[in-house]
Amino acid sequence: MAQVTRMSKLMIKTLRDDPADAEVLSHKLLVRAGYVRRTAAGVWSWLPLGLKVLSNVERIVREEMDAVGAQEVLLPALLPKEPYEATGRWEEYGAELFRLKDRRGADYLLGPTHEEIFTQLVKDQCSSYKDLPVILYQIQTKYRDEARPRAGVLRGREFLMKDSYSFDTADEGLAESYALHRAAYQKIFERLGLDYRICAATAGAMGGSKSEEFLAPAAAGEDTFADCPNCDYAANTEAITYPLKPVDADGVPAVEELDTPDTPTIETLAAHLGVEASETLKNLLVKVDGEIVAIGVPGDREVDMDKVEAHFAPAAVELVTAEDFEGRDDLVRGYVGPQGLEKVTYLADPRIAPGTSWITGANKEGKHAKNVVAGRDFEVDGYVDVVVVQEGDPCPSCGTGLKLDRAIEIGHIFQLGRKYADAFQLDVLGQNGKPVRVTMGSYGIGVSRAVAALAEQSADDKGLCWAAEVAPADVHVVAAGKAAQIELALEVSELLKEKGLRVLVDDRAGVSPGVKFTDAELIGVPKILVAGRRTAEGIVELKDRRTGEREELLVAEAVARLAG
Amino acid sequence: MAQVTRMSKLMIKTLRDDPADAEVLSHKLLVRAGYVRRTAAGVWSWLPLGLKVLSNVERIVREEMDAVGAQEVLLPALLPKEPYEATGRWEEYGAELFRLKDRRGADYLLGPTHEEIFTQLVKDQCSSYKDLPVILYQIQTKYRDEARPRAGVLRGREFLMKDSYSFDTADEGLAESYALHRAAYQKIFERLGLDYRICAATAGAMGGSKSEEFLAPAAAGEDTFADCPNCDYAANTEAITYPLKPVDADGVPAVEELDTPDTPTIETLAAHLGVEASETLKNLLVKVDGEIVAIGVPGDREVDMDKVEAHFAPAAVELVTAEDFEGRDDLVRGYVGPQGLEKVTYLADPRIAPGTSWITGANKEGKHAKNVVAGRDFEVDGYVDVVVVQEGDPCPSCGTGLKLDRAIEIGHIFQLGRKYADAFQLDVLGQNGKPVRVTMGSYGIGVSRAVAALAEQSADDKGLCWAAEVAPADVHVVAAGKAAQIELALEVSELLKEKGLRVLVDDRAGVSPGVKFTDAELIGVPKILVAGRRTAEGIVELKDRRTGEREELLVAEAVARLAG
Repeated sequence: MAQVTRMSKLMIKTLRDDPADAEVLSHKLLVRAGYVRRTAAGVWSWLPLGLKVLSNVERIVREEMDAVGAQEVLLPALLPKEPYEATGRWEEYGAELFRLKDRRGADYLLGPTHEEIFTQLVKDQCSSYKDLPVILYQIQTKYRDEARPRAGVLRGREFLMKDSYSFDTADEGLAESYALHRAAYQKIFERLGLDYRICAATAGAMGGSKSEEFLAPAAAGEDTFADCPNCDYAANTEAITYPLKPVDADGVPAVEELDTPDTPTIETLAAHLGVEASETLKNLLVKVDGEIVAIGVPGDREVDMDKVEAHFAPAAVELVTAEDFEGRDDLVRGYVGPQGLEKVTYLADPRIAPGTSWITGANKEGKHAKNVVAGRDFEVDGYVDVVVVQEGDPCPSCGTGLKLDRAIEIGHIFQLGRKYADAFQLDVLGQNGKPVRVTMGSYGIGVSRAVAALAEQSADDKGLCWAAEVAPADVHVVAAGKAAQIELALEVSELLKEKGLRVLVDDRAGVSPGVKFTDAELIGVPKILVAGRRTAEGIVELKDRRTGEREELLVAEAVARLAG
Repeated sequence: MAQVTRMSKLMIKTLRDDPADAEVLSHKLLVRAGYVRRTAAGVWSWLPLGLKVLSNVERIVREEMDAVGAQEVLLPALLPKEPYEATGRWEEYGAELFRLKDRRGADYLLGPTHEEIFTQLVKDQCSSYKDLPVILYQIQTKYRDEARPRAGVLRGREFLMKDSYSFDTADEGLAESYALHRAAYQKIFERLGLDYRICAATAGAMGGSKSEEFLAPAAAGEDTFADCPNCDYAANTEAITYPLKPVDADGVPAVEELDTPDTPTIETLAAHLGVEASETLKNLLVKVDGEIVAIGVPGDREVDMDKVEAHFAPAAVELVTAEDFEGRDDLVRGYVGPQGLEKVTYLADPRIAPGTSWITGANKEGKHAKNVVAGRDFEVDGYVDVVVVQEGDPCPSCGTGLKLDRAIEIGHIFQLGRKYADAFQLDVLGQNGKPVRVTMGSYGIGVSRAVAALAEQSADDKGLCWAAEVAPADVHVVAAGKAAQIELALEVSELLKEKGLRVLVDDRAGVSPGVKFTDAELIGVPKILVAGRRTAEGIVELKDRRTGEREELLVAEAVARLAG
């Protein structure tokens, strides 16, 4: 919407120094340029310029969601406990959920995400297969009591999100709703000017099956993703899975016991035998809801306990302690091998494929065994991907060494399936007159987070630098200082407004040109137009914020150029 | 924004019957027409059509606030306790405030209004008189834990509000900011198509001095306002004040004691003496923070305890009990008169003006006194307007009998003065180089409530009936039923969209024409266009939802008429 915003009347205070508590670039710059202000830990206020950017992101998201036929609604943030109890999430969310009581003592929560409420809504509104498919979305404030709110609006405790939910009668319908979202998200992030990757992801607290994340590479990101330099494979390192490749074990000699005194660790064992750690098989013991489970991984790999916990969630996972070995003659601490673990569930990394041969514990104090072959000498009860992914690990798709990078999660799409529909018995009458259980998808974009991601990716050493569609203005007109310059700046601003442009004009009196130029670079509007020393001739300077290219032009030329 | 919304794809379920828990018209109709849905007590979801109306109201409010130079920001709803403790409102709000703790045990609240946070923001952002005046506003979700959430979105516990705050260095500046708001509010409510009155109001929990309410007359309203049929006086009955009109007491005989056994009430006294209750003076005793205070009002008037509490707030007010009379020979229960109350603060209604003469208690058991003259026989320590206002009471401005009506409070403007600036030491550097304490105003519009007020005022016996600028669509196109009619309806809808109109088209197959017509009346789009029995001739029926007037027109004529 065409408008002129005068800095002489705008509430804005730019800062030369980084705020003391700011660690990441977007946090520093958004505060310094007067876009946001901290109200409490992880709780932010959006100031005039910041809200313009946030609203632009919101508008783009809304347009693209509408374009795929999604219907906008607005649900409350204050939600009753009961639906979240029905799905178990009232407990599962743990300390991350803001819980409160009303004056009558009834329990409420501040919604971290709305699957339950949308499921109930559709159960109430839709009764026949003719009412589906339906995609509902909202752009709404969410609450999560993060343990370490940090990085400004990148990871707040109150934040703006676009969340949508699809409802279909059949799996093919869900796949279609998912594909519509995937395409809409691609358009949204392209319009926002974000560099992003679509990565395989885990479903996390949502439950469900297929899921992908939209990750924006940035040093400040909290996610790590693996990118294949050769093929189009990309995945959150949390979600990488390797295919199982069985090998031929013919010719591997029988198991041979080795005398390996004082080698309870992989390091001591490898040194003792003069072999690579990667030739050994280490077996991690954990307790899952109190029951011992063993997990085998190559000796040179670390186990990622977050992945182990995610695998068994919502069951609780603990490491075993010395006490757990008492009275168990099948478990010899430091010398466990899968070939003797008959009473324990044995899971393994896919590298422990059938036919592979290993050096591992012999289940006797001070003894190991070699030529222990998976599928011949022991059975694997299930394969799991729980090792820490490393730079250079092979691409699961083509085998090339993977690159690892930090990224910000800006979007997430899930095929939930029937988990929530089951919890609320969400059925509609099918074409054959019988009830059909509905299948759902859930899809999110971090709207306020996207502003931070944009700031991260586009900033340079001078400050912020927005893409045109999200910038708080199209043109930043700077009056160097004198009355005639201010007059010209205001005139040009009106001309630009008439051409439909959004203008920020620095018409402040008594502020030095140097401060104004520095502020303009910091604020990051893509085009800067200066009414400076050639004002009397009607000549202005037009500068590109990104490239720094500048050109002197007559006012009419400059206006035509910008309006073009 | 021009668009076609197809009901065949829209999530909407209209109801023929009123919801069981609905008492007021807007609640019934907004639920029946599929605009809103209850999520919890006083907590509502906005469905697609409802959100369109809400967004229209929001847009109008935004445009008019921008037009007076207000700057939009967005503050959080989750707020830290400390600033509200600094002003005492953490306690004063009582049970109406939603309070919660974060994972570290820190206290938070859900903002019922944001004076504290805006004051802190401006203290941080503005340092000089040159930075003022500034008006900031937000359209944001508010929380109040109402004791009796009722009437649908008219009085919710989570609701959308436009709140703004003005900051000036001088009283004249505040008066100007206040006037800007008053004018903007008039434009907003006119564009919304609301019938409203600007009424004198009390400041309530906000504190401060001058304040007016924008009240929309409606049977469902929770406020009562007095309207003068003769002059332009209007006031919330909570806020009516009468000027003091002293009279000449010359010629009133001296006080005379009367024997009035067994007349502890006004009724028994008036009957015993054969006088009107209005000739007597009754004296209500209350305890204010434990201290006894007497309030004198004419014997025929009731005291409004809410007004008494508001007068003394935040001090606590209680009625006296028998125990309070023990050991007090100056207080004779049932026979109190102001002429003997030397140890008690005596407040009075303005009708007890200096020179007026009364029959009142003689401070002796079974005795009253007549010719007791205010200012001669007793002193009034202060005048207060605490009686219940009645239909026909004189207009304080012109004396005509007042009309009383129910109304919905849709807006409120306050001159706060320096209460919040004092609490946070909000000063700016003045023109003379010395600090100046800032003076503030606070202004609110109930955005979600305005939707309910519009529904209340405009509905008729067929359903909702929106003004053009807020309606969920400009035209409701109804295809009577057959394939050719649906085809024509969709064609006309596209033509209307090309003309820039927002169209809701009922293209549902297998729904009877009767149901569609009833739904169209219920939904309340101002213009209804029917592709019915003359579809083959290219003739449609155009109907005005409000008047019911209908006309048959060729498609091109109908489109031209609607686009004009």
